[in-house]
This record gives sequence, structure tokens and C-alpha cells, in this order.
Amino acid sequence: MADAGFDRVDAYIDAHLEHYVDELSQLCAQPSVSAQDWGMGECADLVADLLRRHGAEAEQFETGGNPIVVARIGGRSDRTLLFYNHYDVQPADPFDLWTHPPFEPTVRDGKLFARGARDDKGEIIARIAAVDALADSCGGQLPCSVLFVIEGEEEISSPHIAAFVQDHADMLRCDGAVWEEGGIARDGNPVLPLGVRGILEVELMVRTLSRDAHSGTAHLLPSAAWRLVWALSTLKGPDERIRIPGFYEYALAPSEQDLALLDGLAERNPQFAEQLRRLYGNRGFVAGHDNRDLQRSVFTPTCSIDGMGSGYQGQGSKTIVPSTAMAKLDFRLVPDQDPHEIYGKLRRHLDDQGFQDVEMRMLGWMRPARMDPDDPLVRLTVRTGREVYGGEPSIVPLIGGSSPAYAFAETLGTPVVTAGVGYWDNCDHAPDEHVRIADLRNGIRHIARILAGFGSI
Amino acid sequence: MADAGFDRVDAYIDAHLEHYVDELSQLCAQPSVSAQDWGMGECADLVADLLRRHGAEAEQFETGGNPIVVARIGGRSDRTLLFYNHYDVQPADPFDLWTHPPFEPTVRDGKLFARGARDDKGEIIARIAAVDALADSCGGQLPCSVLFVIEGEEEISSPHIAAFVQDHADMLRCDGAVWEEGGIARDGNPVLPLGVRGILEVELMVRTLSRDAHSGTAHLLPSAAWRLVWALSTLKGPDERIRIPGFYEYALAPSEQDLALLDGLAERNPQFAEQLRRLYGNRGFVAGHDNRDLQRSVFTPTCSIDGMGSGYQGQGSKTIVPSTAMAKLDFRLVPDQDPHEIYGKLRRHLDDQGFQDVEMRMLGWMRPARMDPDDPLVRLTVRTGREVYGGEPSIVPLIGGSSPAYAFAETLGTPVVTAGVGYWDNCDHAPDEHVRIADLRNGIRHIARILAGFGSI
Repeated sequence: MADAGFDRVDAYIDAHLEHYVDELSQLCAQPSVSAQDWGMGECADLVADLLRRHGAEAEQFETGGNPIVVARIGGRSDRTLLFYNHYDVQPADPFDLWTHPPFEPTVRDGKLFARGARDDKGEIIARIAAVDALADSCGGQLPCSVLFVIEGEEEISSPHIAAFVQDHADMLRCDGAVWEEGGIARDGNPVLPLGVRGILEVELMVRTLSRDAHSGTAHLLPSAAWRLVWALSTLKGPDERIRIPGFYEYALAPSEQDLALLDGLAERNPQFAEQLRRLYGNRGFVAGHDNRDLQRSVFTPTCSIDGMGSGYQGQGSKTIVPSTAMAKLDFRLVPDQDPHEIYGKLRRHLDDQGFQDVEMRMLGWMRPARMDPDDPLVRLTVRTGREVYGGEPSIVPLIGGSSPAYAFAETLGTPVVTAGVGYWDNCDHAPDEHVRIADLRNGIRHIARILAGFGSI
Repeated sequence: MADAGFDRVDAYIDAHLEHYVDELSQLCAQPSVSAQDWGMGECADLVADLLRRHGAEAEQFETGGNPIVVARIGGRSDRTLLFYNHYDVQPADPFDLWTHPPFEPTVRDGKLFARGARDDKGEIIARIAAVDALADSCGGQLPCSVLFVIEGEEEISSPHIAAFVQDHADMLRCDGAVWEEGGIARDGNPVLPLGVRGILEVELMVRTLSRDAHSGTAHLLPSAAWRLVWALSTLKGPDERIRIPGFYEYALAPSEQDLALLDGLAERNPQFAEQLRRLYGNRGFVAGHDNRDLQRSVFTPTCSIDGMGSGYQGQGSKTIVPSTAMAKLDFRLVPDQDPHEIYGKLRRHLDDQGFQDVEMRMLGWMRPARMDPDDPLVRLTVRTGREVYGGEPSIVPLIGGSSPAYAFAETLGTPVVTAGVGYWDNCDHAPDEHVRIADLRNGIRHIARILAGFGSI
């Protein structure tokens, strides 16, 4: 089907766009914060019902955690395209920084504001809309079968998806997969990541006392807060180098092709550093002083303090020796670092540094993953992206974030591409998350074209 | 008046003890958390009314902060004894660790549980009761005048008391002062501190970003949490030595007499370390391995992290680069360290270490203070303590805590002693704060005897 053949598809999308924004609003009005176990069952039901209303056979699978919704729509060819998405969202705290309440979706200035508006409920609605639009122009039958896999634990590192895919490999057999998120760069053209970083999430806990003590005893009683500060300060210094012995052992250096692609991105967007500064108000950067180094540094694995707390954090002062202290860390890992191996090295390092008293707990993990740039599905995604957006997509060898892509790519042996409704400033994971309605429209158009082409690759 | 002459006083105390417990409960039921500006005006009114009901002329003085209640009861001699107390209390957080709600006073097992039950509402009631009991046995007229000074900002480092005492030195002229707190050691006999440490309270704040970022950008964007950890780790290492240049410059070493008194305390209570361990469940101590070193270490100034916080501290995980991080510190200072001088040295140290981006704010300060062991009021307090409790009071050259005693001792040129209702396990500043009713009774008896003797020193 040539691009001209998409007139009817595009007309359908435009005629029904408001309806899809309404459906997205309904989905976002249902909180589904996996980290806080808030509204998960209700949201899974909502998603399954939504898929049924749009003609899919939908079923929920128990995982021991939040259920996974799997839905199928048959098509003409024997080929199957899998859409991976998630119905859970990040916590909305701090609520007071939102312009509109995060679970009361609000349209303003061509944007829908809500937690999940982009990540990932916006993507779910875009895919459903693309299926509807293409079916309408194909006499009701899609050119290929479609499989939706929508999990509820992506924002807590997908602890069950890898085992689920393994246990249901037959049911999930497919010829290609479209990842949960996608979108456009500042130049208005889509970004196609070929790799994601892995992640290891750890909670550290120190207890030195059975209860807080008056700080007049600080010359006697050990402080949990100080123990935590000292333990953390052994992990990484101001030079940003992670000091856990062997941490970098399996970290692959970028290939020449990777570097060429990254340098190409830097050339394409010489304003990258300035754009980040405008978004985040930061004075300096962690690494590098020009765009090339900033792009290249994605191959540097990181250790982030996601949160930490000890003692009294309220107004004014309370003079105590705190009995407990807590930190949540995440390590973003590059190919071929393994989260479990890093966890062991972290424990050994703390022990060796005299911090046997610092307790550790794994909160989640994912492995890194990389795709073949020459796969036909990758090429189809690039070509259709060019058609919808009018320019050349950016191919990114590795992105900063993480995903359970490894579970699909490795277990099902399928290529995984991305196409979606995001842009560079969606405020994912942050207050005022939103999706631009124009991006929603283009994302639907792109997915519809991938679906159309996939039947005949 | 010999001890036998106190039969009527003691009988009065026993007959009215339940009534004073009721008055204490009413006072504790009124929250008055100065750090959170909660119930301060209401509590000041309550205290002034209480004093008036007990025959005092009471007046409230505005300070720019919480009002100070001053009350006077005339006596036979021209001598005046000043009682310094405070009606504010520490925050009650974390509420869920209290066996009974902190502002619903509850009597159980001979103890009254409530925030402020000991610190310092219990002390206020004990003094009022002692005045009542002595007046009853003296035909309604006390042997000396009594001046109550009850402030509302002691738990936030008494920012206004020093200036208030200076501005009202004539009104507050007195011949001796009894400090806001006192009580008994494990041997059942009173403790008489001759010195208190000073304090400097500081809040550190780091802002690296205008908003939290996805931790997939941790290789690019600077983390406020890491900046704070690194800044804190330059202040003190696991050797507990404070690394701010010049920090120890004006810290006096203990004199031979100080050391002899401290070693005497260690001999008197060889179980001190074990008692702390039982109270706080700590495995080790900050300094020293035997009781003598633990006692002596009070002359070591400290740096405590009272609280710190950054990023996401809720359930599960949220993967971000936090934009802000905060820590509250207190430094307990020994004679002759000066809080303002230390504040300047802290700022210079952070700057020199490359932490110009760490913002600082002084939350409060107090100077250290020391008393003359040979003052007649000190001797009277020791003698009457012996009479009430039956054994030898412990004289402590310096205690771990801080107080605005310097404001009275220096400005009014008066000796300051302590006598009160505490014991070693009141849970001051912690959940389940309480006073033992037997201690309340003895504290009242002791204060009554000091008052009786003070008229004829």
C-alpha cells in the first residue's frame, strides 16, 4: 500500500481523534501506580474491556504481581506483529508541583495533561486507534495478526515479564514487536533506538539504634545517617567514576558504527546541551563539555540516588541522632553488564569497606538489549516514519533508559522497534506529564503504516 | 527549716499529687510544637492562666517569635529565685511509633505518657506544685520571691531568649536560677550538671535541576542527592573527626578537676555502656570502649545529621535524578567554641572543597556555659537533693545537651542549678516520652526544699 493509499486511514484518524483523546482521558483518570500498588486491578480490567470494545479477544494472566493483559486480533496473513505496552504509571509525587491534578486529565493548549498521558497510556490508545483505522480501510480485516501484551509492572522494573514471556512463548510467537514507547526528536522526525540500557535497583538500609536519640548523645551513639552517607560516598565520588571493584568489567565500549551514529546525532542537533539546560536549569553536565561527548556518554553506566531519607525532614529543627537511614539507588547498565553480577559486587564492596551493617535489597532489575539495524522491520519503521513525518528518522545505538526488551528479543527471537506518540518534553516520570494531541495523531498514522507494511515484508 | 520541718509540705504534695497530674495532662493535651508553629499562642495562654490560678501575676511578652510568659510571686525576703522553663515541645513525628497518641496524655504503670510530659511541661507543673506546697506550710507567704520565665522556643534553640533577658535585665534581676530540667540518675540520686554544650543548627540545601529528571539521563544531569552526599562526607569521616579546618581551635580540653569528676561518674556507674546498649540497641559506640572514655568524650564536640532527604522515599521505586537535596545538621559545641565562628568556618570549608553550590541557612544557635561548683546555691541544691533522695548527687562538669543558660548566667550574673522530675529513660525528644509520677513527687519535694533554703542562704 503506497502512501497515497492511506487517505482513508488518515481521514478515519482525523474524524475519530477526539474520541481517542476521550478514551485516553478515561484511562488516565484511573490511577495505576505500581510502586504504590494503587489501582492496578481496576486498570487491568479497564484495559481488557477497552481492547474487547475494539474487537480483540482479551485475557488477563496472573503473574504473582499485577496481571498481564494479552489480546489478539486476527489478520489476513500468517504473520503476527506484537505490541508491548504497560498500563502502570510512575508515582505522581510531589502532587503540589502539578499544574492540574495528575489523575484528572485536562486538555490545554493542544496537550492532554495527566500521569500516563504519554507513558504509557497514550501509546496504548494510539495502537488501538491505528488498528481501528487500518481495519476500516481494509474491509474489517487487518493485513496481519496483532497481539497486544500489556503489563502492569514496567515502572517497577518488570519483575515478571521475562518469566511470563518464557512460559508463554508459544502463545506469544510473533514475527516482530513494537515497543511501548516512541516519538519524535526536536527536528520533528522519529527516533529509533536500537538498544536500551539495563538497570539494577537497590534499596540500602542502615539501623544503628532501636530508636532515635537526643543529639546531645552524638558523641556516644552511632548515627544511621552518617553511616549511610559514608557508605554512599564510597560508591562514587565527584569524578563520577563508580568505585565498586569490577563494575566496568563487562561494559562494552561503543563500536566505531555506534560512535559514528552518536556523532551524527550530535551534528544533527548542535543545540542538545543548550536544550537540556533550558529544560532542567542545570549549570553543568555530569560528563563532557560538548554535544559529541554528551551523546557518547550514554555508553557510560551510571549510579543514581533515586531517593534517600533519614531523621527529621519537617519544618524547623529536631535535634536527634537518627536510628535509621535509607537510600534507593539505580544503576543503568550498558551491554554486557549483568544486574545480578553487579549486585554481588556491590555487596562485596560494601563489606570490604567496613559497611557490613548496611542492609541491601534488590528492588528490580532488567538486562540491557541491542537490535540489528539491518532487520526488515527496522527498515520498514524508518521508511514509514519518513513518510509520516517528512524527514529522516534518527537512529540511536543506545538510549539512556531501560526496558524489558531483552525478554522479547532474546526469548522470542524477534526484532523490536519503536514508534509512538512522545516528544522530547513530555515530562515522563515528572510533574505535568502530557502528550501533544498532534503527536498522538502522527503516532497513530505511523503505527497504521507499519501494520499495513508488516503483512507483506 | 530542717528536713523534719517538711512533714506538712510533703503531706500537702501527697494529698494533691493526683491534681497536679491532671493539670499536667491538660497542659500536655495542648500541642505546642515550636518547630511546626503548632498551638504556640494557645499554649502560652494556658500557661499564663495556670500561673494566675496558682496566685502569680503573669504577663506575656512578645518576642518576634513565640511569646515569653513571665510570672512573679512575692516572698518574705528580698531575695528572688528564678525558674526558667519552656512550654514548647519537640515534634512528635513519627506518630506511628507512639504507644499512645502523643497529645492524648495517658497514665499507665505509674507513668504519664505524652509529648512534653517531662520536657518541659512536667517541670513547669512540679515548680508550681512546690510553690503551692511551701506556701501552704508558711502561712501563705514564701520565704523568697519567685520569678517564672517560661519561653516557647527552647526546642528551636531559643532564638529570642538571650535578647529578651538583656532587654529586661532589671525585671529579671534575681539571686539564683533553677534550670528547666533536672532529675535522677540510675542510682536514684539527682544529677547536677555544671555545664552545657553550645549548639549550632544548620540546614544545607542543594538544587542542581529545576525539576527531577528520568534517571536514564543520569550520565548527563547532575544529581542534588550526590552533591549533598559528597559535601557531607567532607565534614566527618568514619573516624568521627570533624574535618572543618579550625573546628577544634577554641575547644577547651577538660581540666584535671573535670576529668576527676567524669572518672568519678564512670566509677559510680560501671554499667553505663551496657545501660546505653539496652536503651538504644547499639552494637558499638562512637568513641571509647570503656565507661571512662564514654564519660570523658562529652568534651568532644559533635556534628550530627538530624535529618536528610532527597528524591523519592515512598514505597517501591521511582527512578529519577533528584533536583533537590536537604540536610539538617547540629554541632554540639564545648566551651569556648562560638557557634557563629563555626558557621563561618563551615561555609569556608564547603567553598574550599568545591561546594559553593551547597546553600546554608542557620536554624539556631546557643553558646556553651559553665557554673562555679562552690556557689552557695549549688551547695544548697546538693544538700537538699541528698535529703530528698537519700544519697549523694552526681556532679557533672559538662552535659551533652545545650541550653540558653549562657543568657541568664552571663547577663544576670546569677548561678544556675538544676533540679527536676526526669530520669534516664524519659524518651525526651522521642516517641513515648513520659514522666514517672514518683519522680514528679520527688521533684516537687526537692524544689520546695531549695525554695525554703534559698530565702536564708
